[in-house]
Amino acid sequence: MMYKETEGGVTAAKGFRASGIHCGIRHNKEKKDIALIYCEKPAVCAGLFTLNKVKAAPVKLDMETVKNETVRAIFANSGIANACAPGCDEAAAGMQKMAADALGIRPEEVLVSSTGVIGIPLDLVPMQKGLPQLVKELTDAPSGSDDAAHAIMTTDTRKKEYAIQFELGGKTVTIGAISKGSGMIHPHMGTMLCYITTDCAIRKAMLKKALKEVCDVTFNRISVDGDTSTNDSLIMLADGLAGNPAIDTENEDFEIFVKALKHLCTVMAKRMAADGEGARHLIACTVSHAADEAEAELLSKSVISSTLTKAAIFGCDANWGRVLCAMGYSGADFAPSTVDIRFASRAGEILVCEKGNGLSFDEDLAAKILHEDEVQILIDMHEGNSSVTCWGCDITYDYIRINGDYRT
Amino acid sequence: MMYKETEGGVTAAKGFRASGIHCGIRHNKEKKDIALIYCEKPAVCAGLFTLNKVKAAPVKLDMETVKNETVRAIFANSGIANACAPGCDEAAAGMQKMAADALGIRPEEVLVSSTGVIGIPLDLVPMQKGLPQLVKELTDAPSGSDDAAHAIMTTDTRKKEYAIQFELGGKTVTIGAISKGSGMIHPHMGTMLCYITTDCAIRKAMLKKALKEVCDVTFNRISVDGDTSTNDSLIMLADGLAGNPAIDTENEDFEIFVKALKHLCTVMAKRMAADGEGARHLIACTVSHAADEAEAELLSKSVISSTLTKAAIFGCDANWGRVLCAMGYSGADFAPSTVDIRFASRAGEILVCEKGNGLSFDEDLAAKILHEDEVQILIDMHEGNSSVTCWGCDITYDYIRINGDYRT
Repeated sequence: MMYKETEGGVTAAKGFRASGIHCGIRHNKEKKDIALIYCEKPAVCAGLFTLNKVKAAPVKLDMETVKNETVRAIFANSGIANACAPGCDEAAAGMQKMAADALGIRPEEVLVSSTGVIGIPLDLVPMQKGLPQLVKELTDAPSGSDDAAHAIMTTDTRKKEYAIQFELGGKTVTIGAISKGSGMIHPHMGTMLCYITTDCAIRKAMLKKALKEVCDVTFNRISVDGDTSTNDSLIMLADGLAGNPAIDTENEDFEIFVKALKHLCTVMAKRMAADGEGARHLIACTVSHAADEAEAELLSKSVISSTLTKAAIFGCDANWGRVLCAMGYSGADFAPSTVDIRFASRAGEILVCEKGNGLSFDEDLAAKILHEDEVQILIDMHEGNSSVTCWGCDITYDYIRINGDYRT
Repeated sequence: MMYKETEGGVTAAKGFRASGIHCGIRHNKEKKDIALIYCEKPAVCAGLFTLNKVKAAPVKLDMETVKNETVRAIFANSGIANACAPGCDEAAAGMQKMAADALGIRPEEVLVSSTGVIGIPLDLVPMQKGLPQLVKELTDAPSGSDDAAHAIMTTDTRKKEYAIQFELGGKTVTIGAISKGSGMIHPHMGTMLCYITTDCAIRKAMLKKALKEVCDVTFNRISVDGDTSTNDSLIMLADGLAGNPAIDTENEDFEIFVKALKHLCTVMAKRMAADGEGARHLIACTVSHAADEAEAELLSKSVISSTLTKAAIFGCDANWGRVLCAMGYSGADFAPSTVDIRFASRAGEILVCEKGNGLSFDEDLAAKILHEDEVQILIDMHEGNSSVTCWGCDITYDYIRINGDYRT
């Protein structure tokens, strides 16, 4: 199904407004550092959070807040992660309260997020000073989403924003999102923050179900560096203003909604992988004809997470031996002797390994294929009927530079 | 216990000779590419091999050969991994046979190893031509071990060779080794090859037991890049020429032997981690006062494997938040609120995180500590009595350079 792309990112759906400004958490005055997303009426909410045992204070607070039937706002900052520092629980609660006061709503209607350096106390003073301006700038014009998308960025080089529309029960439903990466990205919520809004009418239980189902096959299938951060959150709000018959069971409308959400999350996940710290290549690894989906996912994730494979792609080197090697230590039970491996991109496709053995191949064509921004590693298991794609990126000199002095 | 270090590496123990030459597998004539280790009399043997599902042909062959009570020689090449290429099983058998013929022994008395690029057929012709010279140069002088150690190197920048002596049952027993890294290093046999020889009299079953026990706490506790290769082998030969009462049970002599072997393997493992591809820092992560050894090992391995922690150490940045973060996603069940983290080196020691919270600390001292070649990350769990150290290295621009164009 094709979806109509639309402007406005996280404010594209009816009833949502957003803003982002620089308040002074960061030294660089050009860099926005707080963002607000506001919903005119209470929106049902769902959230998925990092599985890291060490959770930032806002994550712990949000895990409680999302249990409420509805919320009205998300208040986020970048620069400081508000994790592992004295007083961080109080700071998260403080963020919640100050945003609620500024918006005239209750604290339990506000979700909060932080992203940045771990272990440094979060100073509430600049945020408190900046909030009136942040609230004043709330708008459903595309600029509001754009500002918010910029405000949550850390080492991202590009803002991530996307929105689509589709028909549901005779009404036009919109889903939009903003997100940030770009290091510490790994399945089960790397350092990502992602906020999705929709005007779809849907029951909270069904929204939760849809978000979990889609996250498992999109955000949980990307990796930048294998590190799962303390702050990762995927939050979705639905205010029902589209006026469609409310989705309250796994009916046909639910399926249409899940498909649309999956499309949106796939786009966002790929953008996050493509903008992984220092990345020059988006790597999409598709394992097809696997015995089952679990095996296909295990194999594909192992390939996109292999540091040596990532380094080879950076060097545009068709070193497929590292791909087969990464499959071998994935934990999947398979016969190497049935595996075919191809590299592909807009520049063409080339078979480099057949039935587990290397072929002599056109190295010039292989290099040309690997010089494209988006590279596919296609693995055919010749075993069964399951197919899974995971996304990652190459590891580059810039990754080392960025992470060698992130705090300074 | 202190051990007397001695010269001669893999030939230090009585009865062992070694050699290494350039035969033409590699283009660079300065780089030796085949090695031979020979034992004057049959030696009992033990081997541990990669857990990768994709195993190189020599590994599959050696897994059978080590089942024999004794062997006489190890024949190895670098440059080509002899994995995942047409005819690789035949090539491994061919290596075994040609070495046996040249030495006048039986093929089943020869272990073979290969290391290098995966997927390219191994040409036996240069090896066949080089073998007479390789056999002629076999010597128990230190030069023989030195040559063999150089011949098995791939991207290693330093040869790895070590030997120690100790008293056992009134006799002097010697254990010596050579090994190579240096990428694809991870617990359970990364791309390492390691050959250990001893003149200790010991039953095969006890040698196997000792090697497994020691490997688990030495080589299985290092990581360079999380990739487990197809070719990794740890092989140990014991010819009994020291004349000590043969070890045939877990008696006091066995304990002395295991302790000495552990010392030797710890030195070799640290050297491999320190010479990880492109590495500038050896990172030793000690988790102490953990609830049990399994938890301590899980936490320590997660820290040394964290790409972000490795990048921070490269940048001499005391970014302990990444250490706590890596502990959090390790899978270990622990309370972050009891964790203390220190950085230490010859330049001093500094507490940076206490009870899970960051401290303000002397950044200049921290940078000075992290500028040393060998850096310790000391984690106190305040939980129990178990302590484990694992070793890794930083990730650098050179790692990217080396692995971006390894094949070319």
